[in-house]
Formats: sequence, C-alpha cells, structure tokens
Amino acid sequence: MLYSKMYGRTNKSFKEFKSVNATLLQKAGFIEQAMAGVYYYLPLGLRVLSKIEQIIRDEMNKISSEMLMPSIVPQELWKQTGRLETVDVLMKTVGANKLSQEKNDAEYVLNSTHEDTITPLTQKLYKSYKDFPISVYQIQTKFRNEPRAKSGLLRCREFRMKDLYSFHTSVEDLKKYYEVVKNAYWNVFERVGLKKDTYITLASGGDFTDDYSHEFQTLSDAGEDVIFHVKSKGLTFNKEVTPSKAPEINDLGPVLPRKDIKGEGIIGVNELAKFLNIPIERTTKTMIFETDEGKIVAAAVRGGYNINEEKLKKIVGAHSIKLVSPETVKKVTGAEIGYAGILNLPSDVQVVMDESLKGRKNFECGANKTHYHSTNINFGRDVQEPDKFYDIKIAKEGDVYPETGEKYEVHKAAEVGNIFPLYTKFTKAFNYYYTDAEGKEQPIYMGCYGIGSSRIMGVIVEKFHDEKGIMWPENVAPFHIHLIGLDLHDDEISKKAHALYKKLTEEYKQEVLFDDRVETRAGEKFADADLIGIPVRLVISKKSGDKIEYKKRAEKESKLVNVEEIV
Amino acid sequence: MLYSKMYGRTNKSFKEFKSVNATLLQKAGFIEQAMAGVYYYLPLGLRVLSKIEQIIRDEMNKISSEMLMPSIVPQELWKQTGRLETVDVLMKTVGANKLSQEKNDAEYVLNSTHEDTITPLTQKLYKSYKDFPISVYQIQTKFRNEPRAKSGLLRCREFRMKDLYSFHTSVEDLKKYYEVVKNAYWNVFERVGLKKDTYITLASGGDFTDDYSHEFQTLSDAGEDVIFHVKSKGLTFNKEVTPSKAPEINDLGPVLPRKDIKGEGIIGVNELAKFLNIPIERTTKTMIFETDEGKIVAAAVRGGYNINEEKLKKIVGAHSIKLVSPETVKKVTGAEIGYAGILNLPSDVQVVMDESLKGRKNFECGANKTHYHSTNINFGRDVQEPDKFYDIKIAKEGDVYPETGEKYEVHKAAEVGNIFPLYTKFTKAFNYYYTDAEGKEQPIYMGCYGIGSSRIMGVIVEKFHDEKGIMWPENVAPFHIHLIGLDLHDDEISKKAHALYKKLTEEYKQEVLFDDRVETRAGEKFADADLIGIPVRLVISKKSGDKIEYKKRAEKESKLVNVEEIV
Repeated sequence: MLYSKMYGRTNKSFKEFKSVNATLLQKAGFIEQAMAGVYYYLPLGLRVLSKIEQIIRDEMNKISSEMLMPSIVPQELWKQTGRLETVDVLMKTVGANKLSQEKNDAEYVLNSTHEDTITPLTQKLYKSYKDFPISVYQIQTKFRNEPRAKSGLLRCREFRMKDLYSFHTSVEDLKKYYEVVKNAYWNVFERVGLKKDTYITLASGGDFTDDYSHEFQTLSDAGEDVIFHVKSKGLTFNKEVTPSKAPEINDLGPVLPRKDIKGEGIIGVNELAKFLNIPIERTTKTMIFETDEGKIVAAAVRGGYNINEEKLKKIVGAHSIKLVSPETVKKVTGAEIGYAGILNLPSDVQVVMDESLKGRKNFECGANKTHYHSTNINFGRDVQEPDKFYDIKIAKEGDVYPETGEKYEVHKAAEVGNIFPLYTKFTKAFNYYYTDAEGKEQPIYMGCYGIGSSRIMGVIVEKFHDEKGIMWPENVAPFHIHLIGLDLHDDEISKKAHALYKKLTEEYKQEVLFDDRVETRAGEKFADADLIGIPVRLVISKKSGDKIEYKKRAEKESKLVNVEEIV
Repeated sequence: MLYSKMYGRTNKSFKEFKSVNATLLQKAGFIEQAMAGVYYYLPLGLRVLSKIEQIIRDEMNKISSEMLMPSIVPQELWKQTGRLETVDVLMKTVGANKLSQEKNDAEYVLNSTHEDTITPLTQKLYKSYKDFPISVYQIQTKFRNEPRAKSGLLRCREFRMKDLYSFHTSVEDLKKYYEVVKNAYWNVFERVGLKKDTYITLASGGDFTDDYSHEFQTLSDAGEDVIFHVKSKGLTFNKEVTPSKAPEINDLGPVLPRKDIKGEGIIGVNELAKFLNIPIERTTKTMIFETDEGKIVAAAVRGGYNINEEKLKKIVGAHSIKLVSPETVKKVTGAEIGYAGILNLPSDVQVVMDESLKGRKNFECGANKTHYHSTNINFGRDVQEPDKFYDIKIAKEGDVYPETGEKYEVHKAAEVGNIFPLYTKFTKAFNYYYTDAEGKEQPIYMGCYGIGSSRIMGVIVEKFHDEKGIMWPENVAPFHIHLIGLDLHDDEISKKAHALYKKLTEEYKQEVLFDDRVETRAGEKFADADLIGIPVRLVISKKSGDKIEYKKRAEKESKLVNVEEIV
C-alpha cells in the first residue's frame, strides 16, 4: 500500500496516555479514540486486527463452524435467563429522538455476550440425541457499559471478540470438547506470539458450579488480573480463587498477659499495628456477615489480608453472603463497628477462622467493646482454638500453595481468552432438553469459549515495543515490509523504488507499506517506520545504489542486499 | 465442510414468508430470524455474505483503504450536524437495567450511518491542501429503527453495509472521484452477478443540493423502489425525481358550457369521475400548500396523479412546503376542504399548474364552493391559461420522458448501492476547512458511497431461484461443490466418498460441502442440495461405480465423470 494514499498517519506529538498500547497505537496511526473505551481502527489497525481474527478463524474452523449472530435482540431472551436485570454492563437501544421513538418504541438488548442468543436458536434446530455434540462460533463486535473504560484496547465499551458455544448430551462429552478448545486456543496464542508468556489459569466457575473455569492470562504489567503460579506443578490460579496459605510467623516469644487497650477511632489494621507498635501480622481482621438464610457469620483473617467472600460463601454453604449493617454488628458484638473480634461471640454466631490465624501467639483482635482492642490474645487461654481453620482470604504475594508449601510466583496479567463450562445454566433457563434414544428428555450441557481479538492487539503492543515504537510479531504485523523511498525527487530513484514496490507485491506476493512521500525528510520516515513497527525495513535511495538497505525492526544493524535476498 | 458437523440445517417445512428471500434463505439454513429485520447468519449464510463482502473489499481496495469505525459514539457528534433530532431511524443506547445505569448513565448514538463519525476524525488528521483528496471505507454492521422491517434481507434493523467517504478541495475533484467509485461499483455488481439487471438511477440529492445522487437499482419485484427507464438515452430515474409528461389526451370534442354540479361528499378523483361519468383524466386535483415563508400555493394536477412536493418546492423556491389546514383551505378557496379548484383564487395565491392540465378541454375542477364541482371548464373562457405549465407530479406508468417523448419503461427495483455528493453539508457543520497554498481556509467537498452487502445477498436470492430452491451465482455461492455421498453404510463407498472429499478440498483446493450424513435418504439429500443451491452437485454411490455423477444446479441432466473432469 502507498503510505501517501492510506487513510491515517503517525502523530508523534500525540498526548501520552497512561496506557502504553493506547499511546503507541495512536501515535503510530493504528487507532483513534472516539470516546473512552471506543476506538476507530484505522487501516493499519484494522489490518492487525484482521490478521489476529484470521488466525483465530483458522484454528476455530478446525473444530467448529463460523456464523454471525445479531447484536440487537428482543429483551425477552435476556428475561428468560433472568439476566436482563442482573448483568451490570448490559446496554439496550431506544429511539434516539422523538421521530424515531414514534415510529418504533420497542427497546432491544445490545448484546454484551451471546449465550442468551445462541441457546434458543440451537433449541430450534437441534433436539435429538443424534444431533449432538454441536458447536458454533462467531467473531463479532460486543458492547459493554463500562464505567471506567481505560487501558487502551484492554478494556473497552465496544470491542471485538470470538465467542464459541458448544452443546453436549453429557458432562464427559463437554469435558472432552473443552480440551479440544483448550488446544485450539494454545495454537492461536502460539501464532499471535503470546504463548510463551500465557498461562492457563484456574478461575471462578460462577454461581452455578463448583468447578473452575479457565482463563488464558498473558503476563503484562498493563493487565488487570493478578495470577498466582505454582512452578513445580505448572499450575496457575487467578487471585480470586487462589488457595492461600499465609507465611508462617516465627519468633513468637513467651505467652504474655492479655491487655485491653483503649484506642478510640483506631480502625483498620495498619493504623492499629502502628498504634499498638506490633507487626501487622499480629493483628486480626474480623468481619461480620449474614447469609441469604439469615445466619450470622464472623470471619477472621490475619491483619494484612482481606476476606474472599466467594471462598467464605462456599464454606458456610450459602448461596450469597453480605456484610451486615453497623446496627447488626453492634447487636452481635456489643460494640460499635470497628472493634469486632473473635472473643466471646454469641453461640449462634458461626465463627470461621482463616488458617493464617493458626499457631499465632500474643495476637491482637477487636475487644468487642467500643474503642477497645485486646492484645496478647492466645488460643486456649483467651479464645477457644477451633477444630478446623479454613482458607477464606484473598491470596497475596508471599503466600504459599498449601499442597506443596512453595511460594507462589505472582504476576500481573491480561486475560486474553477464557473457557467456561456452563453446564445446564442456560439450557435449563430456556427449557431446552434433548430427546434420548428412548424418547425421554435429558439435560443439555453447554460450554462457552471466548477470545478477545481486539484485546490481544493491545496486549501484543504492551509486550512488543521499545522506546521508539511497536515491534509487531510477524504473523500479526500490518505488513511484511516497510519500504522507504528516499530522494524521490530524483526520477531515477523514484522509478526504481516504484519498480521494487511492484516486484515485491506482485511477483513476491509480499505485503508492503511503501513510504512514497516525496516531501518528507529521511529522519521522519525512519522514525515513522520504527513507530509503526513492521518487522522488516527496506530503504532505497541514492546512497543504496543498486542494492537495497535491509534492516529488521528488532535489530540495530542494516545491511545492503539484492532484491532476491529480501524474501 | 462436513454437512453433519456444520451448525444449521435445512428446514423444508419452514413457514412461508411473503418475501422469497426470507423464505428460501431460512428453509435452506442460511439465516434465521431473531426478530423482524434482525437475522442470525448461519455458517452457510455467513459464507455467502463474506464472499460478497470480499468482492466489495477487493474492488474498494483498488480505490481506497479500509478501516473500521465504532458503532456507538457520543451524541455530541450527531448534535453537531443537527441530525440527532431529525434522523427518524436513529437509535441510542442506555443501560439495560438499574445496575448498569448506576454504573454509567451516559447515552450513546448507535450509528445508522457514519458521516457524523468520519468527518471529525478526518478533520483531526487532514488540514492542508497537500493532504487531499483522501478517502476511506469500512464494511460494518448498521442499525436502523425500522418500524416495518420486512422483505427478508432487503430491509433490516440490523444489516451489513460498505460505506466509503471521500474528501476533496474542489467540486471537480469530487466529481472525478465520483466517477472512479461508479466504475468500482459496476465491477462489484458484475462480480456478484447483478450487473445485467442493475441500472444506475438518478435520485434525489437531498436538501442541500439540486444535483442528483445516484442509486444502483437492481430489477426485482421484491424491491421497494420504482424506476423509470428511458431506453434511447440509457437514462434511469427513481420515481421520486422522474421528469414526467402525461400522455396526451385525444378526442377532446367541442367546447361545452360550464356546469356547477352538486356532489356533496364526493371527494377524491376516482369517486368523482364515477359520479360525473367522465374519464378520470378529465378531473383535476388541486391542493393548497404553504411555504416556509408563509406564501400560499395552489398546485393542480390531472386526476390520477399525485403532487410531488419535492418538485413543487423547487418551483416555488421554498425551503419547505406543507399542506395547509382545513381552515386555511376554507379561507383561501371559500369552500370546505375537498372542493378546491383553480377557479377565481385570490390574487395573492400562487397557482402552479402541472403540464398534465395543458391542452385539456371540458375538464372538471373543484368549484371552490362547498359540495360543488365545476365541469366543462376550459382555459381562456373559465380560467386563464398560465404562461407556463410545470412538472409537479409524481411520475406514473404511461408517462413519457419529456425530452424525447418516449414512454418510460417502468420497473420495480431494489437499491443495492448509492453514491451521494454531499458537498459541504457535513464539513461545514463541523467547521472543517482546509488551508490552501496561501494559508487561507477553503471549503472541503465530501462524497459518500454505500453498498448494502446483506441486501445484495437477499436480492441475489430474489433473482436466482426456481421452485426447488436457490441457484447461487458461482462467485457468491457458499461452496463450489455440493458432494453427496449415498450408500454410506457401505464401508467401501464411504471410504471412496471421504477420499474424494479430501482430494477435492486438499489437492484441487475446491470449497466442498460434503453431505456425509449416513442415515439420510437419497431423496432428502437431493432436495437439500437443490434448496441450498450450490452450482455443482456431485453424487458418489453404489450406482456411480468408479465414476462420479455430475450435475449443475441450473441443468436437468447429470452425467458420469472422472475426478479429473470435475474441476
């Protein structure tokens, strides 16, 4: 493509965003922001996006078939699954003005995801046990009402995604296909250049299964997730579900007499540790919860940790839990909020202690007395040691994997894909069953599998750049070759450059971006090439004579070559 | 692709829609309706759509570069052009539920077209006269709040479209590029198989130019447009702008004495002609309009015609006109509504007579007296003949092209593309000017150019089908070959069929849909093949022996061939 004719251009004076990918992609003329989380993909950007999507398509076509679902659908579909009122990023459409509303006052859901859309269609088409398994995927634009869209292409209101859905007559069959998709995903990440730094990560299975779902997390400081890796096992968890064992505390010293210390308004373990002049790990955080069935739960973790409500919920066997009101805290503990502890709680309160409390001596906890904190608390003497400690905390750096006792490697990461065993959540909501060989209705098991193609584009930039600009992996680069013509005022050079462009594109079938601008200085052209980041740069100029200057984006040295040596 | 693994299937008992394309595409498993005007594209359908879009892309890449614009944009963009309140199919997005609205209560426009979106981006990128001309296109999903979405893929609420935008420093340059695009469009329609029946048609230029825009109209009874073709000139008009000359009336007879006849409640020319026992072309329809500047206009056409307000507006030099209220009719004509005529109107009323009134004798018109109609009216005697007659009517079948006097060929047609000289409408709205060589600001001229890719898919089906199903033109067929395996219970045949499939796809690089279903009867497989409409059908069976049965979809006879003869 001739750079002079291509819509879009570099803008080296572009404002710097916090996000590396947003900054570089806009400076280099790949994208432009329409508003927070919504971008134009300029020709350069669309080429990269399309290459990523073509790689995804290639791999998905080996295991499924591609379709295209609608973006706007009747609200009834989302009502059927109960998600119309609960998905907090969902958008709907209405007429934009009076004329439009008068013509048609219906409201439609603008899909953020397509489980609610594909399930009723599949129900219409496939009923018999002979029809299964069946799967289908699409590559499509999705919409999410993100309040804080940021991080460039990593979190958008409008973004591109591949989503695949599969339907099975048994859990085993679902699991089998699940592995097939995993494999296909690895192929995708390999081809887009991210496999090396991508971890398959156990994540929450949602509210309808105790199983994990799986996320493909690519290491990146721009990522919004934190993953915990167990090296010896090759096992990785999303922070939200990481089994956590706190580091052991040594140097416990002799048991000291309990003291109740007045510390009015000293709330929060950091302030408290300072006030009491004890290490934070001697403090205790106690929180009072209520289950959906009205049971009161006091949950305690070592200071410095937070409570993982998902873990706690499962341990107490509740569908949902929430923190109680200040009034209830007072009723339960006898103290204003901020002074709750594990001492002398009413017998109908279930006390759940995190394993991080185990084996501590002389620790602090709220005195259950307004303004008071108890120190030098010891199990046995001051409070009964429970039969069992649990893991109810959000893992943090320094924690160990309970099974092996090895310290986690902790990384920031960006989720580039996820696969999810949905089981019967959606099929049951639509009353969708298959008929078995005996004519009986049986449940249908479903899986869904996503890859964010536009997010991958952002992650690639986060990982492959230097101070001069982007460095695209070959498979997703917008072009193979960035051909720079210098001295194009000179007719002979100009002819030579255009002939080379023709030869490379027509004869060698290379994708070439030809910087054919006549008026632009050499320095600017080189800087643009570095910014844009195409893997190979060729320069043709007076200086290069009958040869062509060849340089890889990632290398410093250039060399003079003949046409034949280029490809 | 293996038919047994492909998502989607034929449904021969599918309900019949009024629309042929909706019926056949759903019966054959190409699309499924999500709601009126919104469809799922199943794998077969997406393949056709993608082929059409790839052809469009090919041709557009020769004259422009491809990008992808956002679907949701800030309302400010549409406010800037004043179109937020005036585009009556425009939709906007809001949070779908309370949670979503609480997180983000912003409303965004869901784009129905992208002039308002591309202009500010181009303004950001291109300022100097050296930067022009510049153009860019996209292939994207569009949304329109259609009240009556019908006709299958011909009129949708969510549909696919290619839209191209160009920016120029002069009208001449715009016109030059306009011709380039026209050419590219003809290439597209040629390749998708529609050129032969497609007419480039003059249509309204909108409210900001007297120029025509151009529509590509494909003859089809399912189309919503009517086009008027002048054979000798190779000229075609959209009905809305067709210059119209009514057929001459012969056999006028001698001038008769005027009569005022009471016909209470006889309103409308059909009823009136019957009542008076005269041919409808002797009646006159007189309508009273008011311009935006308050001028009263009486417009008269021969009975059987309707008034074209666009034509009338231009003749009286108004920005807008509208019919007056019954009260004003009474004030102007002295009679209740329904009895207006061209007789004795107040001198401040501008009377505009259509050319269809010229040369008539003994005609009827409203008496301007409640319940009365005047007959045997004659110019000169009863009413002054105007210096000039105009063309203010909507053309109808039977009319002639005024310049040559030849009768129009009139057809129903579907608009598959349009090109539109926007001039400065959008650039001025955004205050977008370029800087010329002297540093002065100058207006930027813009064009926009659309092709409806999903509509093309529907039009192709309307044109290429028989009683058995669809007959895809080769370039847009979902596959090249429909391979049917019969007797697949037989191991040997099955092996042979699968080997043939492999050879065709891998060695000959053919796109093959292989009906590998074992349990399905031959008759059903043949019927499915006819319904789906792939150009070539191959059958391998016990009967075919070492040969393969070859049949074209459009032909009746099959023949036995060797593998080598197929491609």
